[in-house]
Amino acid sequence: METKAIVIYDFAAEIGNNELSVREGETITITNQSIGGGWIEARNSRGEVGLVPEDYIEAKEVQSVSSGVNAAPLDLSFFDSHLPTPASTAQVELAQAEAPVTPVTPGFSSTSPDEVPGMPNSMMDSEATHGAPYKCPILETSNGNDPWGAFDNNPSGGFSNDWAAQPEGTETGKNSSNAWQSGGQGHPQAYQGPDFQAFSKSGPELYLLSKQPAKGTKLPIYSGEVGPVWSYPEHQLDCVVADPKKGTKMYGLKSYIEYQVTPTTTNRPVNHRYKHFDWLYERLLDKFGSAIPIPCLPDKQVTGRFEEEFIKMRMERLQGWMLRMCRHPVVSSSDVFQLFVSYKDEKDWKTGKRRAEKDETVGVMIFSTIEPQGVQDLDLTEVEQKCDQFSRFTKAMDDGVKDLLNVGNEHWKRCTGPLPKEYQRIGKAFQNLSSVFNSSGFQGEASLTDALTAAGKTYEEIALMVAEQPKKDLHKLMETNNEYKGLLGCFPDTIAVHKVTPSPYSLRQSFRPKLHTGLMRKCAAIEKVKEGDKLVATSKINPTDKTAMTKRLSVMSYALQAEMSHFHTNRIYDYNLVMQQYLEEQVKFYETIAEKLRHAHSEFTTM
Amino acid sequence: METKAIVIYDFAAEIGNNELSVREGETITITNQSIGGGWIEARNSRGEVGLVPEDYIEAKEVQSVSSGVNAAPLDLSFFDSHLPTPASTAQVELAQAEAPVTPVTPGFSSTSPDEVPGMPNSMMDSEATHGAPYKCPILETSNGNDPWGAFDNNPSGGFSNDWAAQPEGTETGKNSSNAWQSGGQGHPQAYQGPDFQAFSKSGPELYLLSKQPAKGTKLPIYSGEVGPVWSYPEHQLDCVVADPKKGTKMYGLKSYIEYQVTPTTTNRPVNHRYKHFDWLYERLLDKFGSAIPIPCLPDKQVTGRFEEEFIKMRMERLQGWMLRMCRHPVVSSSDVFQLFVSYKDEKDWKTGKRRAEKDETVGVMIFSTIEPQGVQDLDLTEVEQKCDQFSRFTKAMDDGVKDLLNVGNEHWKRCTGPLPKEYQRIGKAFQNLSSVFNSSGFQGEASLTDALTAAGKTYEEIALMVAEQPKKDLHKLMETNNEYKGLLGCFPDTIAVHKVTPSPYSLRQSFRPKLHTGLMRKCAAIEKVKEGDKLVATSKINPTDKTAMTKRLSVMSYALQAEMSHFHTNRIYDYNLVMQQYLEEQVKFYETIAEKLRHAHSEFTTM
Repeated sequence: METKAIVIYDFAAEIGNNELSVREGETITITNQSIGGGWIEARNSRGEVGLVPEDYIEAKEVQSVSSGVNAAPLDLSFFDSHLPTPASTAQVELAQAEAPVTPVTPGFSSTSPDEVPGMPNSMMDSEATHGAPYKCPILETSNGNDPWGAFDNNPSGGFSNDWAAQPEGTETGKNSSNAWQSGGQGHPQAYQGPDFQAFSKSGPELYLLSKQPAKGTKLPIYSGEVGPVWSYPEHQLDCVVADPKKGTKMYGLKSYIEYQVTPTTTNRPVNHRYKHFDWLYERLLDKFGSAIPIPCLPDKQVTGRFEEEFIKMRMERLQGWMLRMCRHPVVSSSDVFQLFVSYKDEKDWKTGKRRAEKDETVGVMIFSTIEPQGVQDLDLTEVEQKCDQFSRFTKAMDDGVKDLLNVGNEHWKRCTGPLPKEYQRIGKAFQNLSSVFNSSGFQGEASLTDALTAAGKTYEEIALMVAEQPKKDLHKLMETNNEYKGLLGCFPDTIAVHKVTPSPYSLRQSFRPKLHTGLMRKCAAIEKVKEGDKLVATSKINPTDKTAMTKRLSVMSYALQAEMSHFHTNRIYDYNLVMQQYLEEQVKFYETIAEKLRHAHSEFTTM
Repeated sequence: METKAIVIYDFAAEIGNNELSVREGETITITNQSIGGGWIEARNSRGEVGLVPEDYIEAKEVQSVSSGVNAAPLDLSFFDSHLPTPASTAQVELAQAEAPVTPVTPGFSSTSPDEVPGMPNSMMDSEATHGAPYKCPILETSNGNDPWGAFDNNPSGGFSNDWAAQPEGTETGKNSSNAWQSGGQGHPQAYQGPDFQAFSKSGPELYLLSKQPAKGTKLPIYSGEVGPVWSYPEHQLDCVVADPKKGTKMYGLKSYIEYQVTPTTTNRPVNHRYKHFDWLYERLLDKFGSAIPIPCLPDKQVTGRFEEEFIKMRMERLQGWMLRMCRHPVVSSSDVFQLFVSYKDEKDWKTGKRRAEKDETVGVMIFSTIEPQGVQDLDLTEVEQKCDQFSRFTKAMDDGVKDLLNVGNEHWKRCTGPLPKEYQRIGKAFQNLSSVFNSSGFQGEASLTDALTAAGKTYEEIALMVAEQPKKDLHKLMETNNEYKGLLGCFPDTIAVHKVTPSPYSLRQSFRPKLHTGLMRKCAAIEKVKEGDKLVATSKINPTDKTAMTKRLSVMSYALQAEMSHFHTNRIYDYNLVMQQYLEEQVKFYETIAEKLRHAHSEFTTM
């Protein structure tokens, strides 16, 4: 049977790669779903046939199947009335994860394992899948990429282009209109984003009213000096991402890069492709997304993705991402993460993957494993205050970081553009004058002309230094701030699980705003608990349930507080470190210039 | 009788100053010549009456009177045929200098003393006369200001505006089309410039064939290590220009500034107004212009000429000009210069002025006082070679200097414009982030936020430093190069007395090109001597005259060589000095920045 599909992002075919260029909104016919490698074969209206990235299109017909939500013993029928659209779509989501044969949808393509028999091998090579829907904030302009919905007036920074030295044709900064899909929220996908999963698979009520005993490892929260904190391991896990190697598949039609990941624990390197990182990301998002902001991966890109610069940069960023995950006590100690960094062999890896994908303690259910130690329950008001405070702060910091990024971008351009040119011209002018003086035929000219030439050369050297400097200092400062921009982009959704923060969301230029805000309004835990009395009154729930809800909301709040403590501690460390590094390099820079000039100065003599 | 006059430069009247706006080319009627202060009263075609700067207009009717040239015993009638226009105008020139009552002409206005009875007191207040025709290269853009006639492609640098912090409304950089009048050649005026006088009052033949015994102090030339050199005094004269005081005249309608000039010899200050400097300049130009390049004075200007910045700058430049004159052994030891710096009283000054103005050893006749010691005569070829060499060098240096000025100008703009703004933004971004962090409500935030604020403030300080720096270093570098630009601008005409340098002149966009080149072609000494044989053949002169011509040409060449030695020696000293000062300040600048950043760095701590 032929499946029609709608193109959801522009895609430009790479020459000689059997690809088909398509435009957003165009309807195409899927002629072969089992190409694999994240590609499908499709035919456009003009009858042209070629490969198109799977997650660039959206299958037209969608079958509705019974929702996995029903697995929960509690009858939530009364909630369904509140969230028809998301739920049904959500159910499709779930159905897909279970049913072996389904129409091609991005959500599907990016969550299905390689191994499930008969399934389109949709993730066989996620390098080959286009990055646009995975656009990462750390490579995006701040415009149209604001999970807060605030429209900042920053110039659309060509920053990453200047600075990350990206190969031509990068998709960076495109489709920025799709704020909703863009990495800004730390969501890898269109509307199969984690928030979506979080609120469909697991709208907070699922946890608030759950009767099942909590599954999975317990996550204790202690009250530390700075407030509630996660329990931190004695030795922090760390790992090195290195040694990228190119491999090919599909008879060389598609190729990929494999990275070596070596954890400090085993010190044994394991190989992973980007798609594996992506798989890990999806797992972590599913499992912890409601409680812990999981920053998205550095973006993918089709064009020129094998150019050295890009690979180097991606590795640097994967390293950064892994480091951040390692640093998180909850994430780094999770089975799925441990599997990723230290699986023994292919078999071990595959079984581990299957297990991880079957994990039921995902979405808000993660809160069921959280156990605050020696703290008393918080009441609704406290919870709400904390929540608002975090929301305000993360929003403010997001603005501050974007501001710094824009300024840094401007500065980068100047330092690599007009400024060195000018120093070069100064240098040339001195040398030029020197050679004129040389032609005077007058005695005792030499010492002056030598000195002038030296001075000229010095300014040419300074020109080079100026142009090179940003790579030495600004780069790290920008990288760190970009990482934080990505991280901060996750908070609105993490916080949204707790409380609806209306103003931003109502402003947000979402892909499907109404659906989303509707979703929000109904899914936030605090709103649920506020509904408590009404629900009791209409005997939708009994008083015990209501008490349980409040208690569990308190647990959620402790989790959020622990997460904020974690965020703040890391932030303080990171910014101290990056500023130290930045200023250190700056000092060196100016000292070197002074030294060079001092030497040039010494060559001039007045009798 | 009513005198008609043609306006030679646009003049914009200052409100409430009884002035009349006139346009170049406009014909006006002079209604009162004896206003004084460099002003005349005139009526335009619309019947409007008001004051106009005297040297902005050119009287229409010109009486031809017997030329001062005839004073020479030799009959030069055969030369007259070659240079009718310039000669006749020249004769008028001379006539004017002799005849007490004459129509107003710029040349006149700038050479007539205050005291000649019945004369329009044309220099009573040269501050009040407009500066355009006196435009000085040290305030000009290099465009359209090229005595060499080479068109350089440098951007018309608004330099002096940026840099000399001139009050609004300055005429700087205007009428740049009048390359010929502009200070580029060190000529203060249209075609009453020194070159003109040099070639009229004293076409080289006047000296080459002169039979009169040389008058005035002898100027020996010795052969030094570096070639022919002037005889230098044991103690170099020096003087300080300081303490500008404002005075008014004409019932406060016109005001002026008086400067205190103190020579190291007497250590007794004498007062001089700009017009006196200008008078001195004219004298030196008349007397030494053919042998020694006399750089023009800093330009005049009407608008805002009493603003502090302008007075300060003019004083600085008058100081520079005086210093250069003091440094020149021939100039500084001349009676007129000595009078200027050390006259005893008003009476002494007035008699001295009268004597100076009566000096007959002017123009090329200065060569008659030059006495090369213990050197043998040079033949025509040698003379020509030397001449060409100097011409090439000065031209090349002029280009080099202008190039440096343009680059410096660009740099000045950047350092005072976008660059500090950027550092300020960086500073703000850090401080902004700091205050966001402050709002976290998280413990142990203080040390980071303090450090971030400090770093931010540091970059704001750096912004200020960057904006201030050019005044500290670039300023002096630019001033010196501007001074040299002015000096170099004098060479084409000094050299032109010796030899015609066709290519540049034929290129030159002159005010009256044909006249001028014609003038040149006939007036250069080398060409005269080459004509020697023909003149003998046609028995216009006898063989003895011819031998004398060659001998005198050799003397002229020695003078030129001595002058070039003087120029080179000073150049080498000046450029060593200015580069030392520049680099010294630059070193300080970068060291201070490094120091500030080092301190900012020390405030960050990573546990």
